[in-house]
Amino acid sequence: MTDYDRLTARFTRIATLGEASSVLGWDAATMMPPGGGAARGDQLAVLAGLAHSLLSAAELGDELAAAEAAGEPRDPWRAANLRLMRHAYVRATALPRDLVEAQARANSACEKVWREARRAADFARVCKPLDEVVRLVREAAAALAPALGLSPYDALMDGFQPGLRAADVVPVFADYERFLRRALPLAEERQARQPAPVRPQGPFPVAAQEALCRRLSERLGLDFNHARLDRSAHPFSGGTRTDVRITTRYDEADFAPAVLAVVHETGHALYERGLPPAFDRQPVGEAAGMATHESQSLIVEMQACRTDGFLSWLGPELHATFGGDAAPYQPANLARLWRRVERGFIRVDADEMTYPAHVILRFRLEQAMVAGELAVANLPAAWNEGFSELLGMQPPDDSRGCLQDIHWYDGAFGYFPSYTLGAMAAAQLMAAARREVAGIDAALGRGNLSPLLGWLRLRVHGQGSLLGFDDLLRAATGKPLDPRDFEAHLTARYLS
Amino acid sequence: MTDYDRLTARFTRIATLGEASSVLGWDAATMMPPGGGAARGDQLAVLAGLAHSLLSAAELGDELAAAEAAGEPRDPWRAANLRLMRHAYVRATALPRDLVEAQARANSACEKVWREARRAADFARVCKPLDEVVRLVREAAAALAPALGLSPYDALMDGFQPGLRAADVVPVFADYERFLRRALPLAEERQARQPAPVRPQGPFPVAAQEALCRRLSERLGLDFNHARLDRSAHPFSGGTRTDVRITTRYDEADFAPAVLAVVHETGHALYERGLPPAFDRQPVGEAAGMATHESQSLIVEMQACRTDGFLSWLGPELHATFGGDAAPYQPANLARLWRRVERGFIRVDADEMTYPAHVILRFRLEQAMVAGELAVANLPAAWNEGFSELLGMQPPDDSRGCLQDIHWYDGAFGYFPSYTLGAMAAAQLMAAARREVAGIDAALGRGNLSPLLGWLRLRVHGQGSLLGFDDLLRAATGKPLDPRDFEAHLTARYLS
Repeated sequence: MTDYDRLTARFTRIATLGEASSVLGWDAATMMPPGGGAARGDQLAVLAGLAHSLLSAAELGDELAAAEAAGEPRDPWRAANLRLMRHAYVRATALPRDLVEAQARANSACEKVWREARRAADFARVCKPLDEVVRLVREAAAALAPALGLSPYDALMDGFQPGLRAADVVPVFADYERFLRRALPLAEERQARQPAPVRPQGPFPVAAQEALCRRLSERLGLDFNHARLDRSAHPFSGGTRTDVRITTRYDEADFAPAVLAVVHETGHALYERGLPPAFDRQPVGEAAGMATHESQSLIVEMQACRTDGFLSWLGPELHATFGGDAAPYQPANLARLWRRVERGFIRVDADEMTYPAHVILRFRLEQAMVAGELAVANLPAAWNEGFSELLGMQPPDDSRGCLQDIHWYDGAFGYFPSYTLGAMAAAQLMAAARREVAGIDAALGRGNLSPLLGWLRLRVHGQGSLLGFDDLLRAATGKPLDPRDFEAHLTARYLS
Repeated sequence: MTDYDRLTARFTRIATLGEASSVLGWDAATMMPPGGGAARGDQLAVLAGLAHSLLSAAELGDELAAAEAAGEPRDPWRAANLRLMRHAYVRATALPRDLVEAQARANSACEKVWREARRAADFARVCKPLDEVVRLVREAAAALAPALGLSPYDALMDGFQPGLRAADVVPVFADYERFLRRALPLAEERQARQPAPVRPQGPFPVAAQEALCRRLSERLGLDFNHARLDRSAHPFSGGTRTDVRITTRYDEADFAPAVLAVVHETGHALYERGLPPAFDRQPVGEAAGMATHESQSLIVEMQACRTDGFLSWLGPELHATFGGDAAPYQPANLARLWRRVERGFIRVDADEMTYPAHVILRFRLEQAMVAGELAVANLPAAWNEGFSELLGMQPPDDSRGCLQDIHWYDGAFGYFPSYTLGAMAAAQLMAAARREVAGIDAALGRGNLSPLLGWLRLRVHGQGSLLGFDDLLRAATGKPLDPRDFEAHLTARYLS
């Protein structure tokens, strides 16, 4: 047994523990009775602590050094795996245990207060706990930065999308901001000239919605021999590669949120299902970061399933499911309903054109907080100023402003850019897929994702973490991340 | 921090890992898509391996020795906890790791073959894998015996019901066998003179059965803020103290299996819910073994819910749920249906009077196999001879004989006696409760378990593992296990 083999066995154990946590996390959001919450928190903490101990073990460090000294493996997968093992070990050992525990406590305390503060639209209430969270995040970033050879903010972002640097993101976002200032008024103008969309009239029984969502997810390629669809307060995708679990929520008055969430989560799930089995439970076999993951949900939801072709297949399906007046299910009406540009205060409700503005604002503010240039007490003012500068509207209160997202209050800094980089990558991948594979759109018109999915399996899913975000895009599309494909997509969909 | 405190922290971690395994086990039986099975096996194996490492750690052994050297804690709970910690440590360290892993592999392989063998009624097919399982069980028993100061078979039984010895069980079972030879023909004769029971005519929609089962379980005292009711191939009770999960299966043609299983599993769940919170995740806070656990399911199912009183409340509830002809829901008819003595080949279908005969047979055969006095190849013949000797019938094939239960084929030897000792303990506890608490039966007539439950909370549930099986019975009923209360219960119910 070589040192490399010993390392793969260690990482298999660590990943298997992670799978257990993932299923327990899914259960907590979908099945667990409320009284089980406290014990579940303990269970997840013990598993996380054990996984961290296994990952930061001195013996693992020794084996890593020995494996590296033996020279880079000739097989590129094994070489990448070894590099990713080192990366994981460096991240795990860079943070003192006390700091990790202090962060867990501070994040959990702040998140609780945030729920009340958001309900009451009262930022003052959560200012102090958030200040403590930011203080510890800065401490963690300062500890990670030298270990990784990165700036503090990049060290945080690297935790969500390895390889991503603020210096690469800044010009991409600047380019998009220029595009948006020009395109958004044009899109609004064009939209105003079109007939108003008609909303299908419910009620839409939950059981019928749920059966439809499952059929749709299966139709898109999810194998329910290895998947489940359940309900939760917020849609998510979890579980493991051979047992993915997606969720949605149902509103009897409107089926759209459930259906669109399932399409989105199916994209995430298809990615997990397509990861390379030969490197199961190894770092190189994992999904290539959060931006890549989001690209896979958005290529299914935004690029594929909101096309004219797919809507022309979906409309009759919806009408057959829910009955009633056929007019609202006409593809052209569904397109007007679901491809609508609308400035709003809430990120998760935003359309695909304005969504990046929400992300750009958060990216700038969180960089400033991590750099110590923006005090937490000044966050609401900075938010409102930045929002109004980007979208020309003043949030009426902090619940519709800096209190809306859980991320910062739970200690997640450096995550937000992934959403928009994922949206851009989705457009770039879709353009490349259309160039390489004939009949993608014709198939979408028959409700058939498989030509696109086949290409994604090959170019993205099956690549695991071999290449990382930018090199994956380069190999699949011929260039690194480039916002112009996304802008071209929006131009075609909203301006022409 | 004393050594005792350090030990409690270690045992808390170990128990918390066990909780994670319990939820994952529940998920595997209720929710998991089939394709997740292989990965789930790995997850449970990693968790079991980690729990075993934590429990057999040399540091834990050192702390244990130091805590014991400091003298027995004055508080009896802490004293018992320390003793139980030693017991768990001895069991965990007595078995070589290689043997544990060989057992896991052999059991899993044998169980797979057993499923086919049972379907085909072909014992020859599973003879060799079972032989290997028995060989390893004997090796494990031989390793455990000197460490625990017990005989090999007692060392196995101790793993299911600590403190139980074959020498105590043998006379109890001999006494029951004598009772059965006399009582069974009399009960059959008396039954033959009664009108035949009328079976309610379905179909009984699953949704209505499920809603009824949940209402019934709640009515019996289960708080669904800390519980769930789901479906599985075989009913069971799992989860954790603050999040218990019971299951049942539904048959549209007959509601009885689902309802009676839920009542049974509710008894298990109420026990878990009533364990002492002050010793949560400590050995002394756990349920006092499998026989005690079975006593709690059977006191609810057999002793309380099949009484005339409870049936007089339940009959109208059932009729209100399912409608149709009222006659089959008359309490007297339900009593004839659900309190029926009938010799049969299958243990899990047996009535409460003949059930112990099934257990006595297995107890004798497994002792002989562990002692090396019965070769696996001779098991079918020994089974058929023993069965016919006890119940006067020859199993027509091995599927209705020695292939019917999973236990042995999965490596569980020493478990079977718990079922009947639990049934006997349930009768003994019920008799004591009736002596001590007024109005138990009157309340059952109103569908109200709480007077009985209050007594069980105090005398059994809240005692955790402070006393163990026999001392618990002594404290609660004034005497150790005594089959005569069970025999008196059967005499009253089936002979008078």
